[in-house]
Amino acid sequence: MENNRFARRRPDTDLGAKYRAVRSDTDQLCDGLSEADAVVQSMDDASPAKWHLAHTTWFFETFLLKPHLPGYTEFDPAFGFLFNSYYEGAGERHARPQRGMITRPSLETVFAYRRHVDEAMSSLLRGYCPDILELATLGLHHEQQHQELLLTDLLHLFAQNPTHPAYRGGEPLPMHNVEPDPLTWHQFDGGLVDIGADDGTFHFDCEGPRHKALVHPFELASRTVTAGEWIEFIEDGGYVTPSLWLSDGWARVQSDGWSAPLYWAHENATWQSMTLRGFQPVDHAAPVCHVSYFEADAFASWIGARLPTEFEWEHAAAKTPVTGNLVTSGRLRPRPQRGGETSPVGLFGDVWEWTSSAFLPFPGYKPLDGTVGEYNGKFMSGQMVLRGGSCATPDGHIRSSYRNFFQPEKRWQYSGLRLARDAD
Amino acid sequence: MENNRFARRRPDTDLGAKYRAVRSDTDQLCDGLSEADAVVQSMDDASPAKWHLAHTTWFFETFLLKPHLPGYTEFDPAFGFLFNSYYEGAGERHARPQRGMITRPSLETVFAYRRHVDEAMSSLLRGYCPDILELATLGLHHEQQHQELLLTDLLHLFAQNPTHPAYRGGEPLPMHNVEPDPLTWHQFDGGLVDIGADDGTFHFDCEGPRHKALVHPFELASRTVTAGEWIEFIEDGGYVTPSLWLSDGWARVQSDGWSAPLYWAHENATWQSMTLRGFQPVDHAAPVCHVSYFEADAFASWIGARLPTEFEWEHAAAKTPVTGNLVTSGRLRPRPQRGGETSPVGLFGDVWEWTSSAFLPFPGYKPLDGTVGEYNGKFMSGQMVLRGGSCATPDGHIRSSYRNFFQPEKRWQYSGLRLARDAD
Amino acid sequence: MENNRFARRRPDTDLGAKYRAVRSDTDQLCDGLSEADAVVQSMDDASPAKWHLAHTTWFFETFLLKPHLPGYTEFDPAFGFLFNSYYEGAGERHARPQRGMITRPSLETVFAYRRHVDEAMSSLLRGYCPDILELATLGLHHEQQHQELLLTDLLHLFAQNPTHPAYRGGEPLPMHNVEPDPLTWHQFDGGLVDIGADDGTFHFDCEGPRHKALVHPFELASRTVTAGEWIEFIEDGGYVTPSLWLSDGWARVQSDGWSAPLYWAHENATWQSMTLRGFQPVDHAAPVCHVSYFEADAFASWIGARLPTEFEWEHAAAKTPVTGNLVTSGRLRPRPQRGGETSPVGLFGDVWEWTSSAFLPFPGYKPLDGTVGEYNGKFMSGQMVLRGGSCATPDGHIRSSYRNFFQPEKRWQYSGLRLARDAD
Amino acid sequence: MENNRFARRRPDTDLGAKYRAVRSDTDQLCDGLSEADAVVQSMDDASPAKWHLAHTTWFFETFLLKPHLPGYTEFDPAFGFLFNSYYEGAGERHARPQRGMITRPSLETVFAYRRHVDEAMSSLLRGYCPDILELATLGLHHEQQHQELLLTDLLHLFAQNPTHPAYRGGEPLPMHNVEPDPLTWHQFDGGLVDIGADDGTFHFDCEGPRHKALVHPFELASRTVTAGEWIEFIEDGGYVTPSLWLSDGWARVQSDGWSAPLYWAHENATWQSMTLRGFQPVDHAAPVCHVSYFEADAFASWIGARLPTEFEWEHAAAKTPVTGNLVTSGRLRPRPQRGGETSPVGLFGDVWEWTSSAFLPFPGYKPLDGTVGEYNGKFMSGQMVLRGGSCATPDGHIRSSYRNFFQPEKRWQYSGLRLARDAD
Repeated sequence: MENNRFARRRPDTDLGAKYRAVRSDTDQLCDGLSEADAVVQSMDDASPAKWHLAHTTWFFETFLLKPHLPGYTEFDPAFGFLFNSYYEGAGERHARPQRGMITRPSLETVFAYRRHVDEAMSSLLRGYCPDILELATLGLHHEQQHQELLLTDLLHLFAQNPTHPAYRGGEPLPMHNVEPDPLTWHQFDGGLVDIGADDGTFHFDCEGPRHKALVHPFELASRTVTAGEWIEFIEDGGYVTPSLWLSDGWARVQSDGWSAPLYWAHENATWQSMTLRGFQPVDHAAPVCHVSYFEADAFASWIGARLPTEFEWEHAAAKTPVTGNLVTSGRLRPRPQRGGETSPVGLFGDVWEWTSSAFLPFPGYKPLDGTVGEYNGKFMSGQMVLRGGSCATPDGHIRSSYRNFFQPEKRWQYSGLRLARDAD
Repeated sequence: MENNRFARRRPDTDLGAKYRAVRSDTDQLCDGLSEADAVVQSMDDASPAKWHLAHTTWFFETFLLKPHLPGYTEFDPAFGFLFNSYYEGAGERHARPQRGMITRPSLETVFAYRRHVDEAMSSLLRGYCPDILELATLGLHHEQQHQELLLTDLLHLFAQNPTHPAYRGGEPLPMHNVEPDPLTWHQFDGGLVDIGADDGTFHFDCEGPRHKALVHPFELASRTVTAGEWIEFIEDGGYVTPSLWLSDGWARVQSDGWSAPLYWAHENATWQSMTLRGFQPVDHAAPVCHVSYFEADAFASWIGARLPTEFEWEHAAAKTPVTGNLVTSGRLRPRPQRGGETSPVGLFGDVWEWTSSAFLPFPGYKPLDGTVGEYNGKFMSGQMVLRGGSCATPDGHIRSSYRNFFQPEKRWQYSGLRLARDAD
Repeated sequence: MENNRFARRRPDTDLGAKYRAVRSDTDQLCDGLSEADAVVQSMDDASPAKWHLAHTTWFFETFLLKPHLPGYTEFDPAFGFLFNSYYEGAGERHARPQRGMITRPSLETVFAYRRHVDEAMSSLLRGYCPDILELATLGLHHEQQHQELLLTDLLHLFAQNPTHPAYRGGEPLPMHNVEPDPLTWHQFDGGLVDIGADDGTFHFDCEGPRHKALVHPFELASRTVTAGEWIEFIEDGGYVTPSLWLSDGWARVQSDGWSAPLYWAHENATWQSMTLRGFQPVDHAAPVCHVSYFEADAFASWIGARLPTEFEWEHAAAKTPVTGNLVTSGRLRPRPQRGGETSPVGLFGDVWEWTSSAFLPFPGYKPLDGTVGEYNGKFMSGQMVLRGGSCATPDGHIRSSYRNFFQPEKRWQYSGLRLARDAD
Repeated sequence: MENNRFARRRPDTDLGAKYRAVRSDTDQLCDGLSEADAVVQSMDDASPAKWHLAHTTWFFETFLLKPHLPGYTEFDPAFGFLFNSYYEGAGERHARPQRGMITRPSLETVFAYRRHVDEAMSSLLRGYCPDILELATLGLHHEQQHQELLLTDLLHLFAQNPTHPAYRGGEPLPMHNVEPDPLTWHQFDGGLVDIGADDGTFHFDCEGPRHKALVHPFELASRTVTAGEWIEFIEDGGYVTPSLWLSDGWARVQSDGWSAPLYWAHENATWQSMTLRGFQPVDHAAPVCHVSYFEADAFASWIGARLPTEFEWEHAAAKTPVTGNLVTSGRLRPRPQRGGETSPVGLFGDVWEWTSSAFLPFPGYKPLDGTVGEYNGKFMSGQMVLRGGSCATPDGHIRSSYRNFFQPEKRWQYSGLRLARDAD
């Protein structure tokens, strides 16, 4: 088995156009950000917007332009140190918790860096070397990942500000606080199912190789858990009942004082939440988000269900069209999920769905060769798999085999849950 | 499916004898310990010997005697608070990191507590209520687990003492530093295999329910990795090469300054190690132990193999007789594993073997009802499965379905590794 | 000025008898302690009783016997490492927070060590070399300091035990909860006063050189603040009013959750306190103790007074007989201070009195030569001076020039306060 | 004695002009800073430039305009929470370590806030109520303090940036690496001297009341210690010799890995240092700066001298003209001190000089009434006094009675040292 290719397919005939589109999307996400908004790092897990802008560019410069474009002139030799994220193979780098210290180069210079690299990439992509095209495709998917992080990191930053800045202005919220659809259960047979991405389309290395997995008969909820249901959990003592929690989860409840999802505040007898549209009332009918794996698991215990495995989830999602409330909807918040009578809805978009699977290698997995091999494999410990994308995920970036992963206590992503249970 | 029974079998006809034997084993492990040795807690993960003596007794008092023996008189009402470990359902308890503060009650009083409970248990066991017998059996296996912890915790304590006290006197070490047997590979077919314990014998809840799992064709090493092979890893820069490590593992190497297994010291050009028999030269031919999951995984990467999944391990071990270098051998150290030409050897005893599987529930798992349901289920996050028992595990306590679990950075158990690889 | 002598006087004619008496006092303080009581270290600031027993012995062995007694045979070469406290000049040493790991050598061996050193000291003291006699005198005062620490460290250890062990049995407390004498003020003129110890008697280096200091007219309270007065402070919101506190003190109130003196608990509408005689009702008429400098300062602010400087205190105490409720009284608790009509009472014994003076060198101070020069000088930063001794201080160890010192947040000593104010 | 006035004098006849000058100085210090430079907080001790701009303005708004200017309209009610520093009496406030999260309001809005307050202050100052004028004077001195902090905080921020941004462009350094003047000693008689500020001029409350203090005969060095002398200390093992250090200092050397002053780096066999003019060679003849009290004290021990008390320093400085290398020189770095043959030079400007005095109240000290009473008094614990101002101190802000104070481990201020010793 040939293992040094993340994608074993013909390159896109119009990768240049795709490149321009993805890069331009990133720029547009930064519309309206000040130099200040773009520089601050609000916690170790988050990165400044400026860093995201530069790091995604560094990826192209480091893995594409420097090795493959003859005569390419590096924009600034200091940037290799400043904007490497975690690639040990790419040399020394600035400490992660110090990313917010980089007030200079300015945002303007970083945009100039982007233009410089874009021009060179434009030359490079005119050639048709498959190796390059595949790396460039990886670079674009990498950039799309950072588009989502850019949004979640900004939300975290703005949530630290007592004045509650809104990233984008108020939206009409017509479905607000209508009743959610009732939760129903869809049954799935067990058996040997196909898991993982086909070599014929782009995917990250951790999504393969495609293989058989055994799934036992199960049922999956028609939609994700709503904020209104979460409020019932709170009101029923969910956060003060240790028997519902994993031991590490309960320790976290106590040490971090959790009593509601991240960003929620109870004011004047209503639940409010910081969002990318400012401080807003919680929409009871919409999916709950900003909950950790520990909270998701405790909720499932409370209601007498469980989280699905990632194999169950993928099996259920495999034939579902990849559409939903993604970043392109412009909504920037989960929306109530409707119409799950005949099959589960909302599998893609709205909120990432925690699964009960640890992020571990699939049978036969080997990382990519070289430094890009550090992309996923070295994170295969201590993290849980999430599936399906969120309202902050770019279109074209999500698919049924996509494996996102975070530590079980993390809450700043758009993470929610869908229930599962054993079939009799 | 009836789920509120950990063991669905006829009780032992002679549970009373078994009770006396296990309890007496615990006492004997404490021979030669001073009041001081028995009281100190050397780190948050460890507990004092006196605490182990009392906590195992508290288990019988709390779950057997108080609810089931009419007229039972509690030994001391304060002990419920002092010697509960982590059972939220059994009420408030002394903070774990404070276990070493309990200089009183004295060791003698704790032994009196043991006698008090033993006498009452003797009465109770004369009846034949199946519920009680099953709980008592659980209590004995619980005590055996603490027998192993008592030894590993003592080793940790003595290892903090610059005078290197020996728990037991020097042993003859005839096989010391002979050549190890060469490592060979044994091939296993893939397919659907049976995993988990049968209801007909005792097992912890997390070992069931028995179910089918899919295993892909694989090869398993004839023996575990030796200390001599580990020294090659060290000398080849294993601890200074980030590309071999999981990201969290590499962070730990740096923060904790790992450069060899726990308890090892390089003195006068030889590797020495603190052991239960004092400070001793490392036996190159014997299994390496006191390595974390992170180290085991890095070693496997270095040599171009991987760790087995717990399903592969159990499948390979299912038909192997459960014999090996357990605590009953009195050796208290791993010994070189010989004779693996036709099938893997050393699967039981010597060292716990890290698997690549996260400690997660089996399909259909439900914890026991009531407070004893906190035994395993609430720890199903952030831990990896180890299999096979060690030189500190009591006879009769280990079996092929036994799932031990620790966080991936823990090193104070007798933890080693056996390599696996994909079959072509 | 000759500076290499801590005491510039004729040696005691009967130092041998004094040596035997002090050493025997230490032994007697350990009566009734188990091996377990003697080995545990309850916090970094505290040391195990066994360590105190050994360290004070190590002092004589290291500074007297090894350099000065020809043919002296070291008891155990490992002890130099184990029982050095903080003397960088005496070589490497066991880390302070690890003192509680030393379950071996046993308590019995440590007593044998004491006998071994005592015998050798007996020979050494038969000679009359002034250098030796002075160092031996220093060693005895050093041992007396550790006698007090041994008691305060034991109290801290027992206070961690939910069963509240009593170090010594109950005492008759005839003065319990009688009314305290009213607090009156004694006036002192300002001027140049003599501060510091005379060369003619033993003193620690930090008590000298004797020098002039300028004192402004002041008033000193007739007695120390009582527990009853402290309860008024609590009830008036003392612990929840930031304006009363130094900034660092207020931060400590919040981070450590202070709401009463150390060891106090409010149970069944009364204040109780852990003491060396077990868990006892607080004696309202007795001096409050186990308060930090921060608390003492906040109390003084609350009542509109201040703490005295160490110069004011020493000036007031200089002519007072050195008698009071010291350890020899056997009471082991502060007792109500009576009879301060004509001059301040309780200056010596009961509780150490926090002063408003930072522990800094007196003009012309130089530490002793050699390793014993590390005794005091290197601690002259970040600590406040306390004066007067406590109910745990040995007779003959306290004097008006004695400077004790602790960090302003420390509370486990018998520390209380006496108020002062400016005279008009 | 009347105690509720920090300044007991006639107000400046032209306070309005002074107000405009000081406020304009602050603005000018921010010339060239980007939004990003102005928003980031590089450590808990430092504050963002934007915060300094707003907080100094908040001071006038809170203590002058809101209580005293009828009809004054608050600029933004949220600012009271955002820009209060530590005044408990002024209500709740944003947590100090979160100051860097405030990307909005923008820098432009903060400048608008300044203009808004300046206009209102202009009205207010036209009246001549002494109370107001005194508070306004306090506000201006407060602002000058923040001018210095703004510079030291910026230096700290830029020092975290691997690209070493320069706050101001390169300067001609004509005296660079010339030989320093030899260090000579100036003798001072002992006796009762006058310490503290006169009521006739502005001073902070902690500088008074003026009182007598006793000073023993002493000698003071003609100039501060130079960087070249510090290099000798380093090369002689100053940072690896525990006997030179206070105990807390040595702990800090080890925990923080100190081996040179803050910002120094040894590259290509020369010492370089981050400065407000970028990364520059260390000037051997100029005063060393960015050393902690612990380092200053260790240096003095090494050379066989000591630090002066604040009383010695003030006595020596009392008759010296208040001139020197202050921020107005534009140099932004210490410069070699010349010409100390007849009396000490460089007492004012260049570097703050650590004294051996703890920051404690002068006899008779009482804080100002009301919330401004929190200005100094509550910090009188755990800090050491520095005297004389630095190259970052505004002209007109320093005087011989000025008491600056920092914790003994702090290094980011322009802190250096001058040696003293006892006269025979």
